[in-house]
Amino acid sequence: MIDLRSDTVTKPTAAMREAMASAPVGDDVYDEDPSIHALEERAAELLGHEAGLYCPTGSMTNVLGVWLHVAPGTEVLCDVNAHVARAEMGAHGALTGVTMRTWPSLSGRLDAAEVEKIVSPDAGPYLVSTACVAVENTHNFGGGTVQPLDQLEAVGALCRDLGIAFHLDGARMANASVASGVSLETYGRLFDTVSICLSKGLGAPVGSVLVGTREQVGRARVQRKRLGGGWRQAGILAAAGLYALEHHVERLADDHAAAKALAEAVAARAPQAIDPAAVETNIVALDTGGVPATAVVAAAAEQGVRVGTVGTRTVRAVTHLDATLDQAREAGEVLGDVLARVEQAA
Amino acid sequence: MIDLRSDTVTKPTAAMREAMASAPVGDDVYDEDPSIHALEERAAELLGHEAGLYCPTGSMTNVLGVWLHVAPGTEVLCDVNAHVARAEMGAHGALTGVTMRTWPSLSGRLDAAEVEKIVSPDAGPYLVSTACVAVENTHNFGGGTVQPLDQLEAVGALCRDLGIAFHLDGARMANASVASGVSLETYGRLFDTVSICLSKGLGAPVGSVLVGTREQVGRARVQRKRLGGGWRQAGILAAAGLYALEHHVERLADDHAAAKALAEAVAARAPQAIDPAAVETNIVALDTGGVPATAVVAAAAEQGVRVGTVGTRTVRAVTHLDATLDQAREAGEVLGDVLARVEQAA
Amino acid sequence: MIDLRSDTVTKPTAAMREAMASAPVGDDVYDEDPSIHALEERAAELLGHEAGLYCPTGSMTNVLGVWLHVAPGTEVLCDVNAHVARAEMGAHGALTGVTMRTWPSLSGRLDAAEVEKIVSPDAGPYLVSTACVAVENTHNFGGGTVQPLDQLEAVGALCRDLGIAFHLDGARMANASVASGVSLETYGRLFDTVSICLSKGLGAPVGSVLVGTREQVGRARVQRKRLGGGWRQAGILAAAGLYALEHHVERLADDHAAAKALAEAVAARAPQAIDPAAVETNIVALDTGGVPATAVVAAAAEQGVRVGTVGTRTVRAVTHLDATLDQAREAGEVLGDVLARVEQAA
Amino acid sequence: MIDLRSDTVTKPTAAMREAMASAPVGDDVYDEDPSIHALEERAAELLGHEAGLYCPTGSMTNVLGVWLHVAPGTEVLCDVNAHVARAEMGAHGALTGVTMRTWPSLSGRLDAAEVEKIVSPDAGPYLVSTACVAVENTHNFGGGTVQPLDQLEAVGALCRDLGIAFHLDGARMANASVASGVSLETYGRLFDTVSICLSKGLGAPVGSVLVGTREQVGRARVQRKRLGGGWRQAGILAAAGLYALEHHVERLADDHAAAKALAEAVAARAPQAIDPAAVETNIVALDTGGVPATAVVAAAAEQGVRVGTVGTRTVRAVTHLDATLDQAREAGEVLGDVLARVEQAA
Repeated sequence: MIDLRSDTVTKPTAAMREAMASAPVGDDVYDEDPSIHALEERAAELLGHEAGLYCPTGSMTNVLGVWLHVAPGTEVLCDVNAHVARAEMGAHGALTGVTMRTWPSLSGRLDAAEVEKIVSPDAGPYLVSTACVAVENTHNFGGGTVQPLDQLEAVGALCRDLGIAFHLDGARMANASVASGVSLETYGRLFDTVSICLSKGLGAPVGSVLVGTREQVGRARVQRKRLGGGWRQAGILAAAGLYALEHHVERLADDHAAAKALAEAVAARAPQAIDPAAVETNIVALDTGGVPATAVVAAAAEQGVRVGTVGTRTVRAVTHLDATLDQAREAGEVLGDVLARVEQAA
Repeated sequence: MIDLRSDTVTKPTAAMREAMASAPVGDDVYDEDPSIHALEERAAELLGHEAGLYCPTGSMTNVLGVWLHVAPGTEVLCDVNAHVARAEMGAHGALTGVTMRTWPSLSGRLDAAEVEKIVSPDAGPYLVSTACVAVENTHNFGGGTVQPLDQLEAVGALCRDLGIAFHLDGARMANASVASGVSLETYGRLFDTVSICLSKGLGAPVGSVLVGTREQVGRARVQRKRLGGGWRQAGILAAAGLYALEHHVERLADDHAAAKALAEAVAARAPQAIDPAAVETNIVALDTGGVPATAVVAAAAEQGVRVGTVGTRTVRAVTHLDATLDQAREAGEVLGDVLARVEQAA
Repeated sequence: MIDLRSDTVTKPTAAMREAMASAPVGDDVYDEDPSIHALEERAAELLGHEAGLYCPTGSMTNVLGVWLHVAPGTEVLCDVNAHVARAEMGAHGALTGVTMRTWPSLSGRLDAAEVEKIVSPDAGPYLVSTACVAVENTHNFGGGTVQPLDQLEAVGALCRDLGIAFHLDGARMANASVASGVSLETYGRLFDTVSICLSKGLGAPVGSVLVGTREQVGRARVQRKRLGGGWRQAGILAAAGLYALEHHVERLADDHAAAKALAEAVAARAPQAIDPAAVETNIVALDTGGVPATAVVAAAAEQGVRVGTVGTRTVRAVTHLDATLDQAREAGEVLGDVLARVEQAA
Repeated sequence: MIDLRSDTVTKPTAAMREAMASAPVGDDVYDEDPSIHALEERAAELLGHEAGLYCPTGSMTNVLGVWLHVAPGTEVLCDVNAHVARAEMGAHGALTGVTMRTWPSLSGRLDAAEVEKIVSPDAGPYLVSTACVAVENTHNFGGGTVQPLDQLEAVGALCRDLGIAFHLDGARMANASVASGVSLETYGRLFDTVSICLSKGLGAPVGSVLVGTREQVGRARVQRKRLGGGWRQAGILAAAGLYALEHHVERLADDHAAAKALAEAVAARAPQAIDPAAVETNIVALDTGGVPATAVVAAAAEQGVRVGTVGTRTVRAVTHLDATLDQAREAGEVLGDVLARVEQAA
């Protein structure tokens, strides 16, 4: 089986396992775990922020990041297909009590003008006020899209002018950085808070880090406990996360090359499904045309390739640490054949 | 002063006052108020539904209507400038725990294709599922726009197919009905639940009615009490609402004519601010171009005309029962002069 | 039928109807209703506070009062049978996100030592902090109990010392004042916020007033809109409320005498059900001993007396403006006979 | 330093580290982690339930367990010093929207009569209905109290009769089982859902397991993701948890002996602070009499003994895997001396 459902499926490498085996630990509820401290400090430094908070998931770091900036009854703005809107089970409404409005975008690519159109700061006692804008980089459902730096800067400037917080869902920001050559710190400094995930392309088994000011991280720590995220000797996992930050960033270029190869293999067989030039990082979104995405997923699985859907007519393949270039190409061939066949049948 | 800030500012007429003075009442928490019963039954009948629930505000009937269809963590979809998204203080997130995604639209006019693009029914255990689509008719922030019947029908069919609820924020649906000639019942039957407001164009002092099935209204009644809406002998107000339903629907045509006259008076002086042909009902949205809307509001107020803002560059004037055609025209002249002057100065 | 289910069932008197008929009104969302202003100012003055907010129900004023003092995740403390805990449909948890702990008490009578035992101020990052203590006077489920002034003062002092807010659910504080001779102002000044109900013993058709500082009332006004309580020309009802405050306070002594007469009539027939000396105000709680309270309610209804239950073995009768002394006594005779009969049968 | 602040401070043993180093893992969001499966199945089996869900913390398993049984606006009942009420940061109100009422108890010891007094099942449309009763065994703030089996059975029967759910916060139920000789399964079967913690006395680094029916665990899994608990290859930690379940239960008797020794050493020096006979498991609650508990904590820390507070006048010492009997006795001597000294000074 070649498993390209997500880059979350990677298993810890031997070196990571070693880092975990010898990791010093302590009780993180008491803020006494040295491996967690090392990870949090390193993440904060890399992203140009004061402090970090290690959490079990990227959903939790996003929920905490947004929570820091809002109050029940205020609103957060994001792209209509943002992870915070669609893939966090409605937590921002259900747990934080914030409301959301979304703007449309092509492939999830940020256009500052869209934000400007709907932002509503300090809206008075009769209307909802915008408290936070959230951007995702790379954009998952958009197909691994790297956000244009100038648009990030433009929205950042808008937010600063209007007194609105700016949060980055940087689950895959290391992919963005490697693809664009823009440093993690350059991205990081544009935002009030940033969430970065260690268990996606970076290959760590568990966890994400939220960074911001020391004061923000202190408050987020209390809310983390409220969410049930106040774990104890999690340093064992943090050690793997730190290892990932140190050793698995640059190699993301391999995943990007593998994704491109996969897309090319598909395009050679089913050109309507994908334009390989559109593949920017490690995510390949395939248009299944007239057939349900689930049918393509099932047909590919029969031939040993596991992929997922991100829409009724969109299949998603994600390359990662545990898939070689050859496997990615082979998966592309299988997917291309399936897509060509179903296209013909449809 | 000519007060066109909103059609909510109307005062009860003498006939309404009489209806209130003699209204039989009872304890509505025990569901024993005959005047409330009469209003609820009449509203349900007019809108083609089984039962009704009289509430203090349209915000409450919308919050209850949506609440009936969702669970914390599911999503409701609506236009990016919908009243439920922007003018209910984020209640749907803060109180119901639902999340929201929004689609863009021109003047708030419904385009079924936009809904189809983002709807996400039964999305499984990893994604938020759409539980409800909400539409506003007429669309307040869009400028009193009447929703096209075919688009309402198309979204209704989509929702039925997908097992998603369809809620109408019909705060000003009587305006829509009078302007379009489509009956309240025809509109009403397209939706699972409908909220209609009695204290806007209809001129009653207080209240809205939510209609739906008997079972839904029973559940909404309990949640109404939770929200603090379980009032007692409110039949006094209900009597005014019933009077409004019986006597103030057809006369909305006068308000529409007054709004058109106002828009024409503005356009004669400041043609860039408004195309009178765009005025469909009793709301006139004026584009203030390069100057802040608040400046236009202040300048008009100095000349005895009160209007409001619905955006940093948009002034809103609303005609109603307490403003004559002549007053509306006079207000249009004042606003047109102000807009011409500020335009020149800018 | 003699209806003693609650003092909320009273209908507006002719004089109240007159006050409503001529009441000047305005749009209360814009804070422009003169009758509401008059009521809010009078209530604030009577209770020794700066400002007031008129709301549709006592549940809403309690929800807003507590909301002013807490944040999601903090706690409010109250008696285990307090109205805020049991009769507001869980709104404080469901809408405000606050948690609650409760202390036990005999007949709802406040004992400061119970509060001191469980209060937990500034509890740090691992424990819930107490943000508010709420007391009910008179205590409804306790049987109309008047709170001892010295205990109120003691808890007030404790709260001040600990930096915790103190809220009074004064739904029936006018009954307490008339029974104890302690002025509304003396009671009112002990608390940060007070809710007083106009539609219970005071006989107005609808509404309660929350009082506090001007700043608090301003914030509560925004949250009131979020709850769907931002009504429009509610001055019609406020006029009745003001009338009630001016004319219906002292006459509560009649209700108290009627309640005592009722209790005595019961005790003469079923002495185990009630000690008339325990009746302090207008509420009579009858112990149904070995039989379900609902059976007693049904049997009494068959003989023209309507009462309610406040527990599986407790029947509640409430005297009010629309029940004469003779009717109360007659109801007592009916209830006493029923209780004697069921007791014998049990 | 002898660290007796909590039994959460233990570090994984060498054998545990080995279990983790070789643990097979998978993506737990896709329910594919074999080590997690093994732990969940073993925990369910031990506790007499169908299925289990491994979560980062006991707070999360309690929040999920209660969430399964309630709806916003219903209530959960528990002891006034229960962990779910005081030590989960108000999550049940803030996140689940449930309200709470609490009963008092001596040392947290369950008395079924207290529950019976306040339970309010199916309370109709005007009152909050009880949806869940939660009990803690052993009771942390009560001082490690083991719940009497007959009282657990009595409350269980009451809940079943009334159609109310019964949840066990079994964070330290292994301590209860070892101390009482009642099996985990006997305890477990009394409840609808049970949460057991692996990172307290059992010594695993991270995590708790919630057990219930397969259907309940399926629903809890979705809500776990909403809370941000949908971690990925957490099997590394689960392996340590499984090791703890297999190897660290019986040895809790050592911790109980150590706690008793500590208490005796204190009592020999400061008899007013503790009755050693009251120590049932691994928690020792010391009464600091007239001096603040924080002062005792500070004085003990200066002499190398770390303990915590669970009240303004109560110090808590907890024995565990990383503290020997001798260390516990030494800690008792230090604490006894401090308490004797401060007592004298006070």
